[in-house]
Amino acid sequence: MTDTSQYDALPTDTIDPRQVIGGARASGTGQVFHAVSPWTGEALEPAFTAGSSADIDAAAQEAAQAFASYRHTHPVDRAVLLETIAEELEADRPTLVARAHAESALPLARLEGELRRATGQLRFFADILRDGWPFDVRVDTGSTGPTPRPDLRLMQVPLGPVVVFGASNFPFAFSNAGGDTAAALAAGCPVIVKCHEAHPGTAVLVSQAVQRAVAKTRMPEGVYSALLSPAHEFGAELVAHPNVSAVGFTGSRTGGLALMKVAAARPRPIPFFAEMSSVNPVVILGDGANAQTAQGFVASFTLGAGQFCTNPGLLFVLDDARGKEFVSAAAVGVAEQVGQTMLTPGIARAFSAGVERMLARPGVTERASGTPGESEFAPAPRLFETTAGAFQADPTMQEEIFGAAALVVRCTDTADILACLAHLEGQLTATLHVTAAEHDAAREILPALELLAGRLIVNGWPTGVEVAEPMTHGGPFPATSDGRSTSVGALAINRFLRQVTWQSFPAELLPAQLTDDNPWNLPRRFVCRETA
Amino acid sequence: MTDTSQYDALPTDTIDPRQVIGGARASGTGQVFHAVSPWTGEALEPAFTAGSSADIDAAAQEAAQAFASYRHTHPVDRAVLLETIAEELEADRPTLVARAHAESALPLARLEGELRRATGQLRFFADILRDGWPFDVRVDTGSTGPTPRPDLRLMQVPLGPVVVFGASNFPFAFSNAGGDTAAALAAGCPVIVKCHEAHPGTAVLVSQAVQRAVAKTRMPEGVYSALLSPAHEFGAELVAHPNVSAVGFTGSRTGGLALMKVAAARPRPIPFFAEMSSVNPVVILGDGANAQTAQGFVASFTLGAGQFCTNPGLLFVLDDARGKEFVSAAAVGVAEQVGQTMLTPGIARAFSAGVERMLARPGVTERASGTPGESEFAPAPRLFETTAGAFQADPTMQEEIFGAAALVVRCTDTADILACLAHLEGQLTATLHVTAAEHDAAREILPALELLAGRLIVNGWPTGVEVAEPMTHGGPFPATSDGRSTSVGALAINRFLRQVTWQSFPAELLPAQLTDDNPWNLPRRFVCRETA
Repeated sequence: MTDTSQYDALPTDTIDPRQVIGGARASGTGQVFHAVSPWTGEALEPAFTAGSSADIDAAAQEAAQAFASYRHTHPVDRAVLLETIAEELEADRPTLVARAHAESALPLARLEGELRRATGQLRFFADILRDGWPFDVRVDTGSTGPTPRPDLRLMQVPLGPVVVFGASNFPFAFSNAGGDTAAALAAGCPVIVKCHEAHPGTAVLVSQAVQRAVAKTRMPEGVYSALLSPAHEFGAELVAHPNVSAVGFTGSRTGGLALMKVAAARPRPIPFFAEMSSVNPVVILGDGANAQTAQGFVASFTLGAGQFCTNPGLLFVLDDARGKEFVSAAAVGVAEQVGQTMLTPGIARAFSAGVERMLARPGVTERASGTPGESEFAPAPRLFETTAGAFQADPTMQEEIFGAAALVVRCTDTADILACLAHLEGQLTATLHVTAAEHDAAREILPALELLAGRLIVNGWPTGVEVAEPMTHGGPFPATSDGRSTSVGALAINRFLRQVTWQSFPAELLPAQLTDDNPWNLPRRFVCRETA
Repeated sequence: MTDTSQYDALPTDTIDPRQVIGGARASGTGQVFHAVSPWTGEALEPAFTAGSSADIDAAAQEAAQAFASYRHTHPVDRAVLLETIAEELEADRPTLVARAHAESALPLARLEGELRRATGQLRFFADILRDGWPFDVRVDTGSTGPTPRPDLRLMQVPLGPVVVFGASNFPFAFSNAGGDTAAALAAGCPVIVKCHEAHPGTAVLVSQAVQRAVAKTRMPEGVYSALLSPAHEFGAELVAHPNVSAVGFTGSRTGGLALMKVAAARPRPIPFFAEMSSVNPVVILGDGANAQTAQGFVASFTLGAGQFCTNPGLLFVLDDARGKEFVSAAAVGVAEQVGQTMLTPGIARAFSAGVERMLARPGVTERASGTPGESEFAPAPRLFETTAGAFQADPTMQEEIFGAAALVVRCTDTADILACLAHLEGQLTATLHVTAAEHDAAREILPALELLAGRLIVNGWPTGVEVAEPMTHGGPFPATSDGRSTSVGALAINRFLRQVTWQSFPAELLPAQLTDDNPWNLPRRFVCRETA
């Protein structure tokens, strides 16, 4: 149990409300805005002055200047930076958690866990930097034989300043010092965070911890900036800035698609990595449909008011006795649920609108509803039901409702399930529940799931994205803008790296990473092909 | 020396002019078109009927169907397919070279070498498949300790059907069975080639060799199709087809940018890898400026009528005695050059237009001109000269002139060179000529070159892209559409792969690539992190 009393007396309304530009703080020059209480919609103190074009330009100049030296830093020095950020965040844990709670309504214990996740991610990338494999050094010394070939040496180098958009649903783990920031800093790229407007106070507190770590490790100050603004155009302007070389985004499909267009329309288009929407389909076969699975399903899609990108919002089950029992058990579970206050009043309203749209669709019935929570913005969890035929007839039925809602699709057989899956868009995850008796059917379903998603789960639930090397948090469009990438796991660093080859260099002009004596002790792949 | 007599009697005008759709041939349904003789502009036999929307759809359906099984093939089986394609191409060498010569005017010896390069690339990817490392298998078996973590297993899987655009300047190595096709087939992706309209006969002959290899190795027929059309809209329609999952393109900036927009505007945007334009800057310092370097420069930028993506079209040299001597020697070299017939009359006309534009720019003078060749479409090689000031004042001066033309920029000092480099767009390559005496200046220049290009060369020339594991043939926009990728070298396969994670799978449901007993014998990375 979390001892919540420790947070009560923390005066988080005295936060310095200014923009974070490199090592400095600057008053924004735009309009004033406030975070709002998720419980009441009332403004929280302090007032933040939104950043302007001048602030974007200042942060971008700082980032470009920092890149000139930061890109050449030793991986171990970057590892120390990441570890120091983690330490500074831990030092501020009570204030951070208290303010994040006030701005997001996320439970204190969850926020404590999320902060541990964020510091864990920073240390995870520090470990990877100490390993050094992401730089993918490859050496082919060529040959001087009858068919001479040049000496070629390859490594991955950082792209340049990266813009990271904070996510409303993870004020720590996918925001200012979250996964994208950790991956970009690890890659050697300065970061400019567009703070999420729902938790500006948390964003500033986290940013101050990052600033302290940058100063302590004597890194160039412009390696991190954080800008505040509630205006969508502000984010677009940031993405369009000529100094920016890549973007990491976690948020809505509307927002992601709009910024994806901005990134592509620049005179110099840049890689844009958005994690957008996913309903994370679940398929239940045979004895997989039981009361325990039903309980797991309800727990997963109502977890944290359903505000996870990996929320299983769509489930396919066979319309037989076991399937009916499963749906009944899930309905009982949902009816017992009480709504939790959502991240923002706007998100709560969007949830209700999504529920209305779902109820208006032909063939959809509400199977169960929980009880609304105590605040105005704590809508009741919902369970909807439809048939495979109705589902296949209406492509809008797979629309994500961000929150604690799920749609169960009753199917007649495996073929029916496969027909439904063929209608699905790209997903972050796809899950299958089976017992050994259904492995033949599972072998029919799994290849279809593999085409759909970035992560496949058997007999588990998609919520909970382990920070581990082989993790994928990504998936085919529209789950993400580029289904080849991930925002969690070791390979997330690849988004901010590009390969460069050094040809026929004298040893004295090679970067340290590539010389024969390997002073940085990086893992490398030597290629010795025979000369034809 | 190449014995050219062997090619004389080959009747390459009897080529079957139909579309290649999977294992079948189909008459196009669009307008009739011909290849033209690069020497005369006259139509070559036979007449090809351009493909239509129906042909695109047929090829795309075949590709989707083939993908269902091809994506699960063993890497070694794919290696055998690539090797068999190489053998079939070699079996047809005389006909292939004769027809490519008739369609491109490229010298016979060059085409023989290029065909060796193409078969070498196919075998190179076969070797990589036998190694198995591109699948990047990573296993974390989790833990059952106090903080249980799931079993996670990651590998790279193929994206889906890939469209490859043939390049005019490499009828073998960057066209139907070129690098993109080899990389995509290696990744597990079926390929649909949009044949280059300048060499449709070569394209069909190569495609027939591929078809024979597909049949011999019993691969699904739809794994390869090749469509013919001179219409730009045809390529756009192919890129827009819903079955297509990625595109590889080598060609003009105009064409690449137009198709990049098509790929981004699809309901499901797809990765689009274009290699477009580059002037491949060369910097000469101190004693690097000598008669031998001047000779190397002229040889490199006039090689193959200058029709290489890596043609060094822009050179910075110090305006001192050695620099003046260098430019004089280069001018003498260019004056001795005779123009070669270019790939197509259109390309020759575009060259002349580019020359006119260059001459019209304030501050540019023609320093030397060679002699036009014997045909109507063999323009004289040109050497232009300007000052650093004029260069920095006119951003259009870095425009690529595809062909044997180069611009020398005279600079006062290293700072002047750096100021010029800061004005440059992204490039495929950047080259530096120095002796040990200039290594300090080199250390100032090289970091700027690293930001500009995908490949850096010291005391060599960029033409000649070795097929080797650590090669990069890519670079920041607009050299390519995605500066993180390459079209040559081992990592080219990554463009057509995406990562997927398998979580908590029972052993019986895991793909063979991921099971503990590793029956496919793939290299894998086991991760054993301590549980916190």
